[in-house]
Amino acid sequence: MFRSILETIVTATSGGVGAVLMGYDGIAIDQYVKEDVSLDLNLVAIEYSNVTKEICKAAEILDTGKLQEVSIKTECFYVIIHALTDEYFVSLTLSRDGNYGQGRYLLLREAGALRRALI
Amino acid sequence: MFRSILETIVTATSGGVGAVLMGYDGIAIDQYVKEDVSLDLNLVAIEYSNVTKEICKAAEILDTGKLQEVSIKTECFYVIIHALTDEYFVSLTLSRDGNYGQGRYLLLREAGALRRALI
Repeated sequence: MFRSILETIVTATSGGVGAVLMGYDGIAIDQYVKEDVSLDLNLVAIEYSNVTKEICKAAEILDTGKLQEVSIKTECFYVIIHALTDEYFVSLTLSRDGNYGQGRYLLLREAGALRRALI
Repeated sequence: MFRSILETIVTATSGGVGAVLMGYDGIAIDQYVKEDVSLDLNLVAIEYSNVTKEICKAAEILDTGKLQEVSIKTECFYVIIHALTDEYFVSLTLSRDGNYGQGRYLLLREAGALRRALI
């Protein structure tokens, strides 16, 4: 049930590589990765859960309200992290020639369905 | 010299609150904050340097190329972090009704001037 939503996000995003639904504890619940991709999304999940925890901590200390979204641009990829609940988030990885705006929109559009599936 | 560039970025961005030029070690070099803002940008700098270090570590482990940009959306603010060199980055804080795209563009436009001033 999670996977079909993650697949929708990845395949509908131009340049979409993979998406992971995971907890802030670094444990992935489900994921969808395009077959021709060599990126280890489990490793991505663990690493970005550390990043997300650090950002949540910063937001709490600075009293800037809850974290909603993080976008990371590296030389090779875009990673968009969308907070779902206090415990879970979804991350989407795109190639650098991918459509970043489309990825953000699709994460936002499917966030409700992921939240409902989590409960 | 740094301050005038930071001031340009903040005042030219609709909803711009403040900008900090800083090292990944958490030490701010210079900053510009609008007078009516209560946010402690030094604290922001320290917290986000931790975040940025964690993202750099993730990018290295995942071999996804160097970090270029991070955008963080919380309930109250947008924070955009733009990597300048291996040691320094600039962060811009905007209110949530601010113009995020304009902020990203201005950071990119002024990055060259900041890099030249850093050398």
